[in-house]
Amino acid sequence: MTWRPSSCTATTWCLYADPVTATALEQLAGRVRAAARVVAQSSSSVRDDALMMAADLLDEEWASLVDINQSDLVRAESGGLAAPAQDRLRLNEARVRAMAAGLRGVAALADPVGQVVEGWVRPNGLRVSRVRVPLGVVGVIYENRPNVTSDAAGLCLKAGNAAFLRGSSSALATNRATVALLRRAVAKAGLPEDAVALVEDTSHETALAFMRLRGYIDCLIPRGGPALIDSLVEHATVPYVLDGDGNCHVYVDAAADLSMALEVVVNAKIHRPGVCNAAETILVHADVAGEFLPRLCGALDAGGVEVRGDERVRAVATGAVAAEERDFATEFLGPTVAVAVVDDLDGAMAHIARFGTGHSEAIVTGDVTAADRFVAEVDAAAVLVNASTRFIDGEQLGLGAEVGISTQKLHARGPMGVGELTCLKWVVRGDGQVRA
Amino acid sequence: MTWRPSSCTATTWCLYADPVTATALEQLAGRVRAAARVVAQSSSSVRDDALMMAADLLDEEWASLVDINQSDLVRAESGGLAAPAQDRLRLNEARVRAMAAGLRGVAALADPVGQVVEGWVRPNGLRVSRVRVPLGVVGVIYENRPNVTSDAAGLCLKAGNAAFLRGSSSALATNRATVALLRRAVAKAGLPEDAVALVEDTSHETALAFMRLRGYIDCLIPRGGPALIDSLVEHATVPYVLDGDGNCHVYVDAAADLSMALEVVVNAKIHRPGVCNAAETILVHADVAGEFLPRLCGALDAGGVEVRGDERVRAVATGAVAAEERDFATEFLGPTVAVAVVDDLDGAMAHIARFGTGHSEAIVTGDVTAADRFVAEVDAAAVLVNASTRFIDGEQLGLGAEVGISTQKLHARGPMGVGELTCLKWVVRGDGQVRA
Repeated sequence: MTWRPSSCTATTWCLYADPVTATALEQLAGRVRAAARVVAQSSSSVRDDALMMAADLLDEEWASLVDINQSDLVRAESGGLAAPAQDRLRLNEARVRAMAAGLRGVAALADPVGQVVEGWVRPNGLRVSRVRVPLGVVGVIYENRPNVTSDAAGLCLKAGNAAFLRGSSSALATNRATVALLRRAVAKAGLPEDAVALVEDTSHETALAFMRLRGYIDCLIPRGGPALIDSLVEHATVPYVLDGDGNCHVYVDAAADLSMALEVVVNAKIHRPGVCNAAETILVHADVAGEFLPRLCGALDAGGVEVRGDERVRAVATGAVAAEERDFATEFLGPTVAVAVVDDLDGAMAHIARFGTGHSEAIVTGDVTAADRFVAEVDAAAVLVNASTRFIDGEQLGLGAEVGISTQKLHARGPMGVGELTCLKWVVRGDGQVRA
Repeated sequence: MTWRPSSCTATTWCLYADPVTATALEQLAGRVRAAARVVAQSSSSVRDDALMMAADLLDEEWASLVDINQSDLVRAESGGLAAPAQDRLRLNEARVRAMAAGLRGVAALADPVGQVVEGWVRPNGLRVSRVRVPLGVVGVIYENRPNVTSDAAGLCLKAGNAAFLRGSSSALATNRATVALLRRAVAKAGLPEDAVALVEDTSHETALAFMRLRGYIDCLIPRGGPALIDSLVEHATVPYVLDGDGNCHVYVDAAADLSMALEVVVNAKIHRPGVCNAAETILVHADVAGEFLPRLCGALDAGGVEVRGDERVRAVATGAVAAEERDFATEFLGPTVAVAVVDDLDGAMAHIARFGTGHSEAIVTGDVTAADRFVAEVDAAAVLVNASTRFIDGEQLGLGAEVGISTQKLHARGPMGVGELTCLKWVVRGDGQVRA
């Protein structure tokens, strides 16, 4: 009979995880939680050792991982998994070596744990400081990219947390083998192997139970599509950070350098259309629509992108098909873009306020007032002036690796680095102060 | 027909708040959200004006508020509301003037909005910064203290947010009058009056609907007991910050100055027993139990506090009644304390890990190693060395007024000042950079 852990604040007290009645998932969660307490107190050199050893093991054993991955792929193919999903699931030597390189990159980052963020002395002599400490147990629910297993585990360990992973059923054999390898590295470094754990039951019921492990999971990060996010919002009782959709806009202002605008828009749309920071809608100021849109549509067409334009777009640019209102609310994640003409900056910002998802929004302009208003008034995780939305990414912004890109406002907003896998503890030191 | 606002990340797109089918609550929420966009762009001097005008109105019209409050009190008495709750509900001149003074204090705080928290230049010339911006709409669900209405509204406005309030049915007339007064002040300052709004339907169903206003409420702060928190964890779909229980401990180490320890423990327990940062359990190192506990129990007894001790406490101190295990998990919020003898620092920390709620934990010791280990290893929002737990409070720590004390780890942990009512926006400025 044990008491709830300290992060469970739901009731004054409650019993949980009775060793006799606890589910297998709760028992595993209890072990991960115990491991997290050890990891939290470990030195960064020990945690970095674990990451470097895991990287070495991946480099040494890549062939065996690729073999095991083959069994997932055979199952996926016979199960009718779509070709792009099969590609995401596939490991080869280069991909395993990239996982190893990723872990070495994370090990090389500065340790966020122990950072004193601020501090001061009170008039009564109390010395107050706020210190960055690990969150504890970080849960990650993800789909079938096997590299997320090592990426997420590496980031969690770097920040002093235990990683509690729940991958997809299609990648189960690969994830099992990867986690077994990571656990060997963790143990070799002298940390408890439960600091990295995989939920092997990939049923929907267990996913729901996982989201409800209140008191065991300090932060849950979903990496998946809208169905996963909806389920989390509806059912989760553990704290979570949402990595949501990116319906990103580029607004080409009247005062834009149109050559720069063309480069920025084409890069934002075409550089990698399948990711959340790619542009999905282009808004063009009416004053430059006649000059800019034919050039833009030509360039997008040359890049294999279908343009869905509103009436004013189609009036000046041939080749655009008619956009429905719904297109402006769609994250295409592919070679399609919605384009609209707006009367002015206010029209652009109203459009973004209506259809945006709070991810990344860009303006191209030479007008300092327009730039400043856009930066101040657009409500999004990231706003850009004269730069491609593709830069809103942890590595591109200088955070090193990223855990995801948060589209919520609480805790983390935008690209999340290892710092976002920590929280702040108040430390107060006195010499006997009492409150009068 | 309108699209979801940008903070709703649950699905790629969704319709909401159709003017014809939206509930009254959704319509109100839509107006509050629109007001929040205006408040977010207002200058701090306008927002401070609103707070100062509200303070003046409270000072001028205190008698009318006290009159209206009387009708709530009559209803409460005839409805059988308990005497302490009636006292919390009661307004008098002093209490209304204290509400006014609170608003002036909040107005005098530094404006968190616009603060550039960090920034750097990337190798490609991109200038990256992180800027503090308002959250948007902050919801507060609270029980029957009428001062929370003005306190919460003041803090929300200070941080550039709209305040969406849902108080208790017992305080409805008082809250209505207070919010009407606040809205007059907001309008006089030139801000939309919906920047402060009250949900007047105090039914349980509407409370549940309030917790599920995803896309309208950016952050919900519950100020209530365990039943409210449980309901929120189970049903809320909006982001929230929990202000949970404080089962706070003071551990008296073998190396403690026992006179200091006595002062700290007595202050932590007796200074104001009904609040969350009061001590509920005292842990005493076995080596000093014989000397310390009789003095402690005598002092607590003299202060009217009932001591519930384990066997080892009762062996050395007369007057203690037998503690059950459950007592160590109880937030008494009154003149009762649980006391246990522990073998050493590890025993104390194990006890805290088992029973603590992650609020505030204190050690009294002269031993630097014990102090450092306690600070590093105890997992709580706040840890204190040689000081009373009563200092874990926004004002005492120097934050100015506080919105509450978070016992969760995400977003805010421990006392929340106006800074915790903001979030960070990434601002990236370039001169045409595209990603290679």
